[in-house]
Amino acid sequence: MTSNPEFRLFDLGSNRQLAGEISEKLNVPLGTIEEQRFADNEIYERIADSVRGIDVYVIQSISDPVNDNFVKLMIFIDAARRTSAKSINVIMPYFGYARSDRKARSREPIVARLIADMLESQGVKRTMTMDLHTSQVQGFFDIPVDHLLAMPVQTHYYYERGITGDDVVVVAPNPNSLKMVQRFAKVLDAQWALVDHRTDLVLHGEPYQITGDVKGKFAIVLDDMIDTGRTMVDAAEAVAAAGAKKVELMATHAVLSDNAVEDLQNSPADKVIVTNTIEVPAEKHFDKLVELSVGSTFADALRQVIDQKSMAKVLLSPDNPEALK
Amino acid sequence: MTSNPEFRLFDLGSNRQLAGEISEKLNVPLGTIEEQRFADNEIYERIADSVRGIDVYVIQSISDPVNDNFVKLMIFIDAARRTSAKSINVIMPYFGYARSDRKARSREPIVARLIADMLESQGVKRTMTMDLHTSQVQGFFDIPVDHLLAMPVQTHYYYERGITGDDVVVVAPNPNSLKMVQRFAKVLDAQWALVDHRTDLVLHGEPYQITGDVKGKFAIVLDDMIDTGRTMVDAAEAVAAAGAKKVELMATHAVLSDNAVEDLQNSPADKVIVTNTIEVPAEKHFDKLVELSVGSTFADALRQVIDQKSMAKVLLSPDNPEALK
Amino acid sequence: MTSNPEFRLFDLGSNRQLAGEISEKLNVPLGTIEEQRFADNEIYERIADSVRGIDVYVIQSISDPVNDNFVKLMIFIDAARRTSAKSINVIMPYFGYARSDRKARSREPIVARLIADMLESQGVKRTMTMDLHTSQVQGFFDIPVDHLLAMPVQTHYYYERGITGDDVVVVAPNPNSLKMVQRFAKVLDAQWALVDHRTDLVLHGEPYQITGDVKGKFAIVLDDMIDTGRTMVDAAEAVAAAGAKKVELMATHAVLSDNAVEDLQNSPADKVIVTNTIEVPAEKHFDKLVELSVGSTFADALRQVIDQKSMAKVLLSPDNPEALK
Amino acid sequence: MTSNPEFRLFDLGSNRQLAGEISEKLNVPLGTIEEQRFADNEIYERIADSVRGIDVYVIQSISDPVNDNFVKLMIFIDAARRTSAKSINVIMPYFGYARSDRKARSREPIVARLIADMLESQGVKRTMTMDLHTSQVQGFFDIPVDHLLAMPVQTHYYYERGITGDDVVVVAPNPNSLKMVQRFAKVLDAQWALVDHRTDLVLHGEPYQITGDVKGKFAIVLDDMIDTGRTMVDAAEAVAAAGAKKVELMATHAVLSDNAVEDLQNSPADKVIVTNTIEVPAEKHFDKLVELSVGSTFADALRQVIDQKSMAKVLLSPDNPEALK
Amino acid sequence: MTSNPEFRLFDLGSNRQLAGEISEKLNVPLGTIEEQRFADNEIYERIADSVRGIDVYVIQSISDPVNDNFVKLMIFIDAARRTSAKSINVIMPYFGYARSDRKARSREPIVARLIADMLESQGVKRTMTMDLHTSQVQGFFDIPVDHLLAMPVQTHYYYERGITGDDVVVVAPNPNSLKMVQRFAKVLDAQWALVDHRTDLVLHGEPYQITGDVKGKFAIVLDDMIDTGRTMVDAAEAVAAAGAKKVELMATHAVLSDNAVEDLQNSPADKVIVTNTIEVPAEKHFDKLVELSVGSTFADALRQVIDQKSMAKVLLSPDNPEALK
Amino acid sequence: MTSNPEFRLFDLGSNRQLAGEISEKLNVPLGTIEEQRFADNEIYERIADSVRGIDVYVIQSISDPVNDNFVKLMIFIDAARRTSAKSINVIMPYFGYARSDRKARSREPIVARLIADMLESQGVKRTMTMDLHTSQVQGFFDIPVDHLLAMPVQTHYYYERGITGDDVVVVAPNPNSLKMVQRFAKVLDAQWALVDHRTDLVLHGEPYQITGDVKGKFAIVLDDMIDTGRTMVDAAEAVAAAGAKKVELMATHAVLSDNAVEDLQNSPADKVIVTNTIEVPAEKHFDKLVELSVGSTFADALRQVIDQKSMAKVLLSPDNPEALK
Repeated sequence: MTSNPEFRLFDLGSNRQLAGEISEKLNVPLGTIEEQRFADNEIYERIADSVRGIDVYVIQSISDPVNDNFVKLMIFIDAARRTSAKSINVIMPYFGYARSDRKARSREPIVARLIADMLESQGVKRTMTMDLHTSQVQGFFDIPVDHLLAMPVQTHYYYERGITGDDVVVVAPNPNSLKMVQRFAKVLDAQWALVDHRTDLVLHGEPYQITGDVKGKFAIVLDDMIDTGRTMVDAAEAVAAAGAKKVELMATHAVLSDNAVEDLQNSPADKVIVTNTIEVPAEKHFDKLVELSVGSTFADALRQVIDQKSMAKVLLSPDNPEALK
Repeated sequence: MTSNPEFRLFDLGSNRQLAGEISEKLNVPLGTIEEQRFADNEIYERIADSVRGIDVYVIQSISDPVNDNFVKLMIFIDAARRTSAKSINVIMPYFGYARSDRKARSREPIVARLIADMLESQGVKRTMTMDLHTSQVQGFFDIPVDHLLAMPVQTHYYYERGITGDDVVVVAPNPNSLKMVQRFAKVLDAQWALVDHRTDLVLHGEPYQITGDVKGKFAIVLDDMIDTGRTMVDAAEAVAAAGAKKVELMATHAVLSDNAVEDLQNSPADKVIVTNTIEVPAEKHFDKLVELSVGSTFADALRQVIDQKSMAKVLLSPDNPEALK
Repeated sequence: MTSNPEFRLFDLGSNRQLAGEISEKLNVPLGTIEEQRFADNEIYERIADSVRGIDVYVIQSISDPVNDNFVKLMIFIDAARRTSAKSINVIMPYFGYARSDRKARSREPIVARLIADMLESQGVKRTMTMDLHTSQVQGFFDIPVDHLLAMPVQTHYYYERGITGDDVVVVAPNPNSLKMVQRFAKVLDAQWALVDHRTDLVLHGEPYQITGDVKGKFAIVLDDMIDTGRTMVDAAEAVAAAGAKKVELMATHAVLSDNAVEDLQNSPADKVIVTNTIEVPAEKHFDKLVELSVGSTFADALRQVIDQKSMAKVLLSPDNPEALK
Repeated sequence: MTSNPEFRLFDLGSNRQLAGEISEKLNVPLGTIEEQRFADNEIYERIADSVRGIDVYVIQSISDPVNDNFVKLMIFIDAARRTSAKSINVIMPYFGYARSDRKARSREPIVARLIADMLESQGVKRTMTMDLHTSQVQGFFDIPVDHLLAMPVQTHYYYERGITGDDVVVVAPNPNSLKMVQRFAKVLDAQWALVDHRTDLVLHGEPYQITGDVKGKFAIVLDDMIDTGRTMVDAAEAVAAAGAKKVELMATHAVLSDNAVEDLQNSPADKVIVTNTIEVPAEKHFDKLVELSVGSTFADALRQVIDQKSMAKVLLSPDNPEALK
Repeated sequence: MTSNPEFRLFDLGSNRQLAGEISEKLNVPLGTIEEQRFADNEIYERIADSVRGIDVYVIQSISDPVNDNFVKLMIFIDAARRTSAKSINVIMPYFGYARSDRKARSREPIVARLIADMLESQGVKRTMTMDLHTSQVQGFFDIPVDHLLAMPVQTHYYYERGITGDDVVVVAPNPNSLKMVQRFAKVLDAQWALVDHRTDLVLHGEPYQITGDVKGKFAIVLDDMIDTGRTMVDAAEAVAAAGAKKVELMATHAVLSDNAVEDLQNSPADKVIVTNTIEVPAEKHFDKLVELSVGSTFADALRQVIDQKSMAKVLLSPDNPEALK
Repeated sequence: MTSNPEFRLFDLGSNRQLAGEISEKLNVPLGTIEEQRFADNEIYERIADSVRGIDVYVIQSISDPVNDNFVKLMIFIDAARRTSAKSINVIMPYFGYARSDRKARSREPIVARLIADMLESQGVKRTMTMDLHTSQVQGFFDIPVDHLLAMPVQTHYYYERGITGDDVVVVAPNPNSLKMVQRFAKVLDAQWALVDHRTDLVLHGEPYQITGDVKGKFAIVLDDMIDTGRTMVDAAEAVAAAGAKKVELMATHAVLSDNAVEDLQNSPADKVIVTNTIEVPAEKHFDKLVELSVGSTFADALRQVIDQKSMAKVLLSPDNPEALK
């Protein structure tokens, strides 16, 4: 028996279900962390297992409560570093604050870069994440970023149901997601469309326009995340009003803040399909919600990292969708 | 009119009252920050006033909710740095996580150092704080730390009331605070005592002992902070049981977590005297609570910093109490 | 006479005309650099004027020959740093390699970040640039980035000519520029359209489709740069074929590589309007080319930086176009 | 035979005896260093054995002559780094300047942090030391610190002699060592006491007081180090005057400067028990001196580090003394 | 078959012939790089083979075109780092800009240090180079520098031809190369001489003087590099005029800029002997040119590095020439 | 009266006489440092005057005792940094360890670079020094180095005495100093010569040879430093034996270790002329010793630095001696 196992996997609790799934698929138990929240809300963590000279992989989404989850991650890293871990590798299924990726106005911060800096300043060696809001955020890191994408799992979901081809239209709810939508459409051999603020329709008092043909089609409105759900619901309504025969909403990250649950449930969409990068708490479950698991995607990617093999097959870049069909 | 004022003062909201007081005493308005908490609890901040080429001073205690308050501070720093502030100076009346200042067991973090590192890694130029749990935490920073102490305000409170001399005993509720207690006693020309886990008394099932004479004396139990209040209440009971004629509890930082309010109110102490480094919310106010303000101390110190004058008079070191009488 | 002037402006020669214009508008002479290219193509630079204790501003586009221009900049920075310049500020009207801003495939570099890192590692304090290919590149820097935009100059050009309103359509030649196009259209009170690879038209053997209405309209095809010109020419042809009454091509950065000059001259566009962030050499001038100067924009921005005043008015964020009308 | 042995152990000569003992217990020869002191007192070092790709462990106490010993260590590190050692690990049985751990007055340095910084800046990967003057000094390092304690060897010395239980009192010669004394007392099932500047006794013209009962007891005065010995001798006299039946002085680090040898020999103490973290030169040996070896403690800890096993058993934290009985 | 080979060797094309030779002698294929130069002269590189967890060795001389070659190297390093290479090791047979190694005048850069800084800032772990213009340049790096020398190959060339002993004189064409010349002479048991600007001879209008005896001897004029060849040709003429019976010119680095080829061919020297650290393009070949290969020297050194064995035998220091005979 | 004087000058005691002279010529008093050496030889320093917001200039040669003097400097820097000095500028009239400037053999350190690194890592902003052993050491620093030279003072000494022209020969005692000697000779319109290990003379059992003509001339043997004096004395003897009519020895740095004093006094030289970069203690004074002061050179240079004026006139580069006549 070796005294120094290859690596050890930890979970900081932001997403117990996904972490459990990854652990199971890798056939590696999750390490033990003694964790406590003091009466004044300071966090205490202690790594219970020895990690001296060991590659440490830690899973933590920067999801709500974002600041607690982030500080918890930083404290874990400090503890691992001080006890001579060989390397610290951070898996963030959901990278919070990713939308703060540029200064839209004077005197704004760029929080996504700040987070990257803080992780690097404490000696993190590598990060793994999924479907960054903009892929340029990779360049906020000087350390390697393994950028996974949910698209294989998502398109597989439609292939299985036989929903492909010209009768399907993938709809971008805003210009930002247009490129992703085009790639998605290509994989499904489908059409694409764009819903945007213009003059054809009026939703909630604002004019909207759809470019592309949705009439009579199976419409999949696609974005990287659903936060308050407003954009998605607007797009669903626009597409329904334009004569789509069926509407489904799809996104990777289920932030589901504010009235998202109620609004989505009441929208014209039949299904709202998300992945489990963020754990949807029980009270936010609703009838139309479908959760796809990206556990295998993370487990496969981690296996390649641990074996130091090429990630080319797992880490399919968002710009090379052809391989996804 | 100069286009580039000397400096600008900001408050991030952890302690509006103290910040207001500092602002008033310095006769400098607090700068404006556009702040927002998104539905998913991500924090948005934007500095409304230009700080280009200006020395920025920002007030933020790392008090409950500690992680939110800390991340809010980091985000502010990022915004200030990106907009070409000349320097960023952080005033933390209460430095949270300061008790995590060494590894008591294997595989623990040292969170106070982590916080120092994160502040420095983002280019903070100077910090100012008060009554660190251990003064060695100064050495966790490579940047200047102006370490203020509340003792002048605290001893003044007793001098004003005429409570000095041999009939007064300053009591350490544990060995950690013994040195501070001895200095305090010296300033009041008083005696000192130590309550510790030993054999003379039984409090809550544990044996205690008092070294030093408290019988018939006016006892001031002194510590740097009151968290759950357990240690303070135990000491108060021990001192009362040992025949002190009066007991008061005094501390700089009013963490007041858990059942502190109720326990303190029900303790044998007549008064619980704290400072306003941490803002005590209305619902935690109780009859015995007395709040001393350290607003002037911070304002005076800041004035010296801004004028680039020696802090020797303001920044009285904890090891030179003689100047405090 | 003061021995230490406020600042000194240098030009490294990538764009003598723009530098001259900035110098003139700021009423500040360009500093002297002794420059030499050794027989083996190593670059020699020596700063002829004293810059001890002075804020140094240096203008250099990372344009063709990109590597020579970049190394020349780094060498200048090294010389300025070693002679005790107070600060070094880099003005890059065109930030080359900006398109290498994310890993599109495994084992690719992110050269834009690499350049940011190299500048920062040598102590550059601030950069100023214009119309980054993606605004996230701001986050590749930890130092302040003053991100100017050419839009005010560009929209002014159309306002002056009275080309605004519903008869005008601003056309995105690919989804990447759609957001910029929408903002531009908003300023001109115009419509917008998108040319993209789809099924309505066949250009050079590939199917294209236009979303939005261009028939009978004055079409302005807009992008951030014209490199080989292929994308722009394709869009011009598509828009012309779709019945636009007039087509003009507009971009900030005139890279004009390969056969761009010939192709653009032969395209259905009447004008090709660029700015002078990149100096177009005499041999690349062609009849349809119109050059707008951004000299005033840079001079105004520099004046604010030097005076340490807010840039809010000059540095109009790409996301706040309303102020541009 | 492998060309790349696991690790190599070096000694820089501050404590040849302890280094020899560690080498012997690890069954690993000490590497050879060509060392020379030039006529102008510059130090020359050259590592005689190849350390390319090898983990290097170097033993050096920062003991008198402290500056020479420290610079010698830094030079060794530079040489090891430049010759591609895999890692450099520093074992400092005595960490000099550790008492300079906070600013007691304005404009003082924090030399312990300075030393930590200099070691880290040259790429040291890990340090090992013993009984730091304050355990917060661990936080001066960002690299792992294996903080050993002499207590197991020290308490074993008393257990072997049967000196435990209620008739024994462990005495703190000042409040700083009180916590250590309480832990020590707990291990020996003994009482504790504190000698401090107050009113009961007059030693050398200053009033002293003992809190706790020493009369008729076997008193062990305990501190982390004996420097000039003044504090220890005063405590010994106070305890003897208060009726202790026997007095012994114990400390980890035998600095023994100034008149320490003579004063200790003439004190009421029967024995002065130190460890060999600092080599006591022959001329400082005196009758009452007892040296305990911590060679095994260091060898055991190094073995765990080298084997990348948990140090939990060896590296007993000062705050978990219960394991020491 | 292991998925993680020991290391991988890459060539960036500055010197295909030498790289091929090294690859062959190490019996290791060169890795594949997808390389492209865009129409605007930006460089694109992508590493085709997986290097995750692998030690990467990359060969690139910083020779003409120096800036392109340097930036190409930096981009490769960025790509390798981002894809989780275990380490990046740079082999620069010719280290360009090495003559910019100090400030000869105010406000000059030190470009050799700048290059060292940029390599280190991107995480390069080790460099290997040959015959630095001054050996102090080693100290510009904080990472290990394996400094090879061509002398063994060069002296072997003369030993083979039997050209050794008192009838041979090794000539320094300027004081800078005098030490190298003396070492070379020692290996050949030869005499040495120095040609310098003084009064005995007039060459091209400037007075020259030879110290040392060259009359009737076989003269080898030796320098580290031949750039424009002016210094070498002057020395050849001086030595010939002073009665040397035969003159040969020898240098490690064949920069051969300007009119070097013609001037050297027309000089009194019979041979011009260089090594292949810089690839001499076909059009610069001339009759008198002799190329010695240092391929084996680099291959042997790399083998030691890869095997983590001592380089002492390969990396013969310029100051220990005795081992070269 | 301003509360923030421009700058403050400190002396750490390695060379009280020179510091005093600089202070006097600048008409600026030396700041006060409370300094103490503890009984265990640890150094204590405290800056007595406020330096908050002030440019600090500190004078300290790294001369014997080199390690104490270096550590004393580092501790001062730490104290100045922690008390918010605006900048820290180090004046090292003699930069010790400068001869350790490259790896002459495997596994050697480069101590000069190590010292540069340590100074920079603690935030030193600028250094000033004189006559570095090799000028490449400038490149060991990333911060500005003002490299003064003693040559103006030294040549002035000969001009004043009328010792110039063809009857004077400046002699290099080894090839390393040949370039400096040639420059010196040029300033004096004198000849130069080189004494080196060869065959004409036998000194102390080793053969020597002089290149250049010394017979009947006034010979000035010149080097950067006199350490043990062996090289200088050998050269003096060689030159005397070769018929020089007079011999004087000249060097900047008077290390004078070992038997230097006696050997120099007994040598054929009439004078041994040094500067006061290193303080020659009273017991090392001897008849032939002449001390030239470089106090004015340092004072003039500091004045330019403080006034932020060009140093071009003061900081005459060793490569531009023509200005020295």
